[in-house]
Amino acid sequence: MKAHLVTVGDEILIGQIMNTNVAWMATQLNLLGIEVARMVTVGDTPQAIHNVLKTAFSEADLVLMTGGLGPTHDDLTKDAVATFFRKELVYQQAIFDHIRQLLESRGRKVSDLNRVQALVPEGFEVIPNPIGTAPGLWNTFEEHGRKKYLGMMPGVPFEMKAIMETHLLPRLTTLSDTIILHQTLLTVGIGESNLAELIGDVTKFLGDGTTLAFLPGPKTGVRLRLSVRATSKEAAEQSLQKGITHLWNRAGKYIYGEGDTLPEIVLGELLKKHGKTIATAESCTGGHVADRLSDIPGSSAYLLGGIVAYCNSVKKNLLGVSEGNLLTHGAVSEPVVRQMAEGIREKTGADFGIATSGVAGPDGGTPDKPVGTIWVALADKDGTEAHCLQLFKDRILNKEYTTTLTIDLVRKRLLANTA
Amino acid sequence: MKAHLVTVGDEILIGQIMNTNVAWMATQLNLLGIEVARMVTVGDTPQAIHNVLKTAFSEADLVLMTGGLGPTHDDLTKDAVATFFRKELVYQQAIFDHIRQLLESRGRKVSDLNRVQALVPEGFEVIPNPIGTAPGLWNTFEEHGRKKYLGMMPGVPFEMKAIMETHLLPRLTTLSDTIILHQTLLTVGIGESNLAELIGDVTKFLGDGTTLAFLPGPKTGVRLRLSVRATSKEAAEQSLQKGITHLWNRAGKYIYGEGDTLPEIVLGELLKKHGKTIATAESCTGGHVADRLSDIPGSSAYLLGGIVAYCNSVKKNLLGVSEGNLLTHGAVSEPVVRQMAEGIREKTGADFGIATSGVAGPDGGTPDKPVGTIWVALADKDGTEAHCLQLFKDRILNKEYTTTLTIDLVRKRLLANTA
Repeated sequence: MKAHLVTVGDEILIGQIMNTNVAWMATQLNLLGIEVARMVTVGDTPQAIHNVLKTAFSEADLVLMTGGLGPTHDDLTKDAVATFFRKELVYQQAIFDHIRQLLESRGRKVSDLNRVQALVPEGFEVIPNPIGTAPGLWNTFEEHGRKKYLGMMPGVPFEMKAIMETHLLPRLTTLSDTIILHQTLLTVGIGESNLAELIGDVTKFLGDGTTLAFLPGPKTGVRLRLSVRATSKEAAEQSLQKGITHLWNRAGKYIYGEGDTLPEIVLGELLKKHGKTIATAESCTGGHVADRLSDIPGSSAYLLGGIVAYCNSVKKNLLGVSEGNLLTHGAVSEPVVRQMAEGIREKTGADFGIATSGVAGPDGGTPDKPVGTIWVALADKDGTEAHCLQLFKDRILNKEYTTTLTIDLVRKRLLANTA
Repeated sequence: MKAHLVTVGDEILIGQIMNTNVAWMATQLNLLGIEVARMVTVGDTPQAIHNVLKTAFSEADLVLMTGGLGPTHDDLTKDAVATFFRKELVYQQAIFDHIRQLLESRGRKVSDLNRVQALVPEGFEVIPNPIGTAPGLWNTFEEHGRKKYLGMMPGVPFEMKAIMETHLLPRLTTLSDTIILHQTLLTVGIGESNLAELIGDVTKFLGDGTTLAFLPGPKTGVRLRLSVRATSKEAAEQSLQKGITHLWNRAGKYIYGEGDTLPEIVLGELLKKHGKTIATAESCTGGHVADRLSDIPGSSAYLLGGIVAYCNSVKKNLLGVSEGNLLTHGAVSEPVVRQMAEGIREKTGADFGIATSGVAGPDGGTPDKPVGTIWVALADKDGTEAHCLQLFKDRILNKEYTTTLTIDLVRKRLLANTA
């Protein structure tokens, strides 16, 4: 079953508010095997609403509309929809009574504008709104022998969700005939195109209805989103499992997690599980590694703290980096980053000490060490490893990627240690 | 001028990611007097892309598309657009050279898939992508005697923004016929509704075409965006200046900057100007204060470094916080946060030492110190001040607001010292 999501609202078209409704609705519909083929936002005008409905019902079986059901004069959706279906608006006393009751329970007076909210296109079913004044509406009709469905809801996110959860989702479950399943695998340390080559065309391998999307980001690394489609739950699960196995076989060494996670969440779980602690010594990342580690609730169980050693005197006095190394090799060098990682481990008593030192940019590059040259190191009881990264020209991207890669370094060491 | 925003991407249709691009783009276009009449998201299929372009160009003069320009086989936008305009795809060696250069500078190999990114519909203009591999594209044509414009960009938000800011927005400015000017004043330390009361109805004061938007954010404080609209540049400039003066008169003591700035940028300029240095001692913010200070290019001139004192032993051993204060008052207390600020100043020799210690949440609250109880302190040669904030239940929001307020504390002290 195909769906279009239609949003009516000028406040979205001028960029004042983000359309968070459609992402939530799409997730819910997907879980029922209903494919969202299009999302459209239009303004509060009869012509725009008419045009969008015409296209929607020519391409989709289900149209869910939100917005424009409020009591003010810029809420024109119901009028426009009634005109589209050539229906009259009919006053329903029961809706008005519900609105009056709700408002009075909040100490507010009912106004003439609320009467407009009790108008319903003839023949439409009224869907109760458990928490607001504007009810949802539902209409079923046939076109060229195909059943078509229209659901209308207010645009206020928590009212929309309440109506969906209590009434529309249970109803839609009975209408769908396709099962769609997704899984996301998260990788770090490899680019989108190299990953694509490594994996090959998973669509060919798994057959029609399967898609693999590559979603890169400096905080997550490249996410691989696998989607499969089938007519039974069993077939879909089997196909998804087959695809996941294929991805792990081809790209397993780069995968750090599945689903909606981040490197710092995965590492945090591992540190807790093994009772290990961590501390940071940061130059070019300027505190961002500690910051991301401490974003995770409960991180005080394993994050002892860290030192932001931005100037050389802090590297020397607080981390014990030697003057000799700073003079001979410079702050952005393997000997210095190793001493930083070992120094923070010693100062805090953490199991893992991690360190970063690099040229974040935009200035400060030299022919030997251009912007994006970044050393990272990891020290534990077994020794210290250091790596040189060649990243970007952008300061913030460099901080973010370096943090992602450094955090993942600890995960790999921890897994190797406990294998 | 009317615009449609078209997003291509299955990841949005399944609800996995929120379409943040269109809100940002709509805001930018509005400021140029370009009206966004529709936003549409469709999947990566040739038919969907064809249909959406057909509708878009029948209703709008300008169509901006994002997504589907990456190197992998699920990126079909360019093919579909070429077919729509009945153009061939032409290989451009210069694009491929740029991609190779960019990837090699990151230590990555160029792959055959990247060659696909060098294909361009015949006659389309190539818009450079300053930070990624997929270039933007631009096409101008005439239909029924009306000029029409198509801009295409990758869907990765920071790449889209880079292309818009460096190339497309300046170009679109020359196409619009209304003069819209805007200025943003940034405030910290006061909420949206109190600020609105303080300022009064600026629209009435300045007349039609003027709007004042209140844009709250944990990183900036409440931004006041004043927009004026006129048919001549002179009239617009006069009106804008009048509005800015009004805002400074009413709310000047909360304003820390104008335009596109941040507390850490404003503070950085002041520290450089007065030759002062700063260092951080962070508990609940976990490195976020140092992180934001170090986001600013050139911050190594004034940021010496910091200590993330997440556990009490780091507070004692590295910052010199007394065992007695920790036992008697707890880590979230005035005596401890004062010792942290003084300790980091002493350890690093910085002119200003700033410190945070609080209950970030979601757990760890007590009846005495509920989640959101946060102490901040500032130490310099003249003494130490400390403040208790009562913030939110959300961990990330608490870290962000605390950082914003702490940074602004230094600005105020520095201004008072040098007044």
